[in-house]
Amino acid sequence: MKIVTAVDSMKGSLTSIEANQIIANVFTANDHSVKEVAIADGGEGTVAAVIKNNDAQKISVQVRALNDQLVTADFAWLPSEKLAVIESAAASGIQFLDGSKRTHPSNTSSYGTGEMMLAALEQGAETIVVGLGGTGTIDGGIGLLSALGVLFFDAKNQLLPPIGSSLGKITRIDSEKLDPRLATVTVYIASDVDSPLIGRTGAVQMFGEQKGLHKNELESYEKEMSHYQKIIGTTNNVFKGDGAAGGIGFAIRLFLDGIVCSGFEFISEQTGLETMIKHADLVITGEGKMDSQSLQGKVPVGIGRIAKKYNVPVIAFVGSVKGEPELFYNEGISVIVPIIDQITTLDEALKNADKNLYNAVRRTSILMTLVK
Amino acid sequence: MKIVTAVDSMKGSLTSIEANQIIANVFTANDHSVKEVAIADGGEGTVAAVIKNNDAQKISVQVRALNDQLVTADFAWLPSEKLAVIESAAASGIQFLDGSKRTHPSNTSSYGTGEMMLAALEQGAETIVVGLGGTGTIDGGIGLLSALGVLFFDAKNQLLPPIGSSLGKITRIDSEKLDPRLATVTVYIASDVDSPLIGRTGAVQMFGEQKGLHKNELESYEKEMSHYQKIIGTTNNVFKGDGAAGGIGFAIRLFLDGIVCSGFEFISEQTGLETMIKHADLVITGEGKMDSQSLQGKVPVGIGRIAKKYNVPVIAFVGSVKGEPELFYNEGISVIVPIIDQITTLDEALKNADKNLYNAVRRTSILMTLVK
Repeated sequence: MKIVTAVDSMKGSLTSIEANQIIANVFTANDHSVKEVAIADGGEGTVAAVIKNNDAQKISVQVRALNDQLVTADFAWLPSEKLAVIESAAASGIQFLDGSKRTHPSNTSSYGTGEMMLAALEQGAETIVVGLGGTGTIDGGIGLLSALGVLFFDAKNQLLPPIGSSLGKITRIDSEKLDPRLATVTVYIASDVDSPLIGRTGAVQMFGEQKGLHKNELESYEKEMSHYQKIIGTTNNVFKGDGAAGGIGFAIRLFLDGIVCSGFEFISEQTGLETMIKHADLVITGEGKMDSQSLQGKVPVGIGRIAKKYNVPVIAFVGSVKGEPELFYNEGISVIVPIIDQITTLDEALKNADKNLYNAVRRTSILMTLVK
Repeated sequence: MKIVTAVDSMKGSLTSIEANQIIANVFTANDHSVKEVAIADGGEGTVAAVIKNNDAQKISVQVRALNDQLVTADFAWLPSEKLAVIESAAASGIQFLDGSKRTHPSNTSSYGTGEMMLAALEQGAETIVVGLGGTGTIDGGIGLLSALGVLFFDAKNQLLPPIGSSLGKITRIDSEKLDPRLATVTVYIASDVDSPLIGRTGAVQMFGEQKGLHKNELESYEKEMSHYQKIIGTTNNVFKGDGAAGGIGFAIRLFLDGIVCSGFEFISEQTGLETMIKHADLVITGEGKMDSQSLQGKVPVGIGRIAKKYNVPVIAFVGSVKGEPELFYNEGISVIVPIIDQITTLDEALKNADKNLYNAVRRTSILMTLVK
């Protein structure tokens, strides 16, 4: 049997690569051929997924993390396509936050993500995919732009450092020295975050607290972000994805003509997922939590819809499921298999996800051939 | 496909009959033939299981419940075998306890269970199966014996009422008037309780508190039970099952030559379960909680062992599973399918057991035919 496995990451427990591996182990042991497609949403793990799927080169560079520390970050390089895939989480990720003033959003920057783009340009990239998600900064992308040559000045015409606290002070932006190579490079924004820059679901109000803003700082920070938006000359706040990665989405879209795509769609096209599914006897997908939101989600339902076109059955392994299975069955998912097997806490379930997934896949493989 | 479903009750949620019904509904809708075998352990539901399995007559009689109230209780009657199946839970069940002094073990009696045996004798029974389990009395079975004609006297040669508080006062027992019909009747004790009469795992210490004894009453009550045991002329405490139903097991074994069998074994023989399994393409079983104890348990592992003899695959649906599936797979259970599908409390899981079982059976039936 030809199987394609493309499970989304199970947040807090398994990466897509790990989940696929567990599934592949069970089915290859039973003499099936299994193709693993690592899924990513633009956030942490996107570069690893591209390297895994495409056998791309991994290129490591020294860049400044959001707190100015030098760190090593990887990007994926596909020489034949002159395509670089970077992820903002690598240099500007939430993992660098330590609760100190140094990593408070006022003092952090997406500069390192810009440095990764520079490294991609050095590599000769003609296309750069910037995966957004899992960042710890809310600098509106001025750090990234700064690394690429854009300068931000205050009312006294003094150069501003590209950190969160500068957003409200910007009165002039100089893009003269923006790296000229960018003029001929196509930049994609790969993200599954739908937030606009401003507002209740925006970069500040929706994500500010998890990045270290106090509740009582949200209002003033939002004002500064609004000021920045107006300075750039737009009050159009309808663009979904502008609020991704603390506003990096906004910066790339406006300054670099970034084209927004979903992380899943990018992976899907990059790997030829549809063709793989078309020729498969069985497709396996899954995610941590399947509920009504999953119907708007990208991965299992996205895969179900592709498989439905070709009449290929789909099994979705999920950490938990809520709501009527029928809703998913209509979307091409043939059956949902929860991996949990006892009354347990969320912590325990996350800790045992590998074992639970393994056992669920095992019993599924047994059931599939139980009665001849 | 010919399917036999014999799921144990899922304590606190589904009876065996209900669980089998859910399973049968899914598979008959897919054009399979399903035979349902209701499983019982001697406790509540045993009579209903026998009626369901054997299309036996249900005979209702008025008897005294443990608190002396008149209640209607049913027994199963199989005319062709002159076999009556009664259960102690019907007349002497824990459901009659109300926390009042009237239903304190000192004041309650298994008299009503004896009345049911009398009714079975009236019916012309040649074999009486007494299911034990789920009782609310701890009277050592003197109530039951009393209903059948045995008399208990104290040191002053006064007739004692057959209630818990009399146990310590008995000095003489008169069996002269024991119903003579019992001499030619075979009595079986169907129970899955392994407790001896006395001791840490006995009728008083193990079950006393759930039947309304206070912790500080256990020691004196145990002494009275010991006294009763000695008066009857035995200090042999090794008989497993003597402690079932507050000592009814003990009374039936010694006074009525009762033959101990497990509830499951009785059902199994009565229904010809082994023959059914032999001719099935698939056997379905299950229980509430599958863990290392289940290996010593009666139902899923018992069924697995029978099915293994005939190479028939077995699916076990369980509320939850702990431990290595391999242990069960060695016992003829092909695959264990937990029915839980999300992080939840025990209360919620019990409340949703019907829906969870239905969904689990549904996904199982889909998986079994997913890839042709």
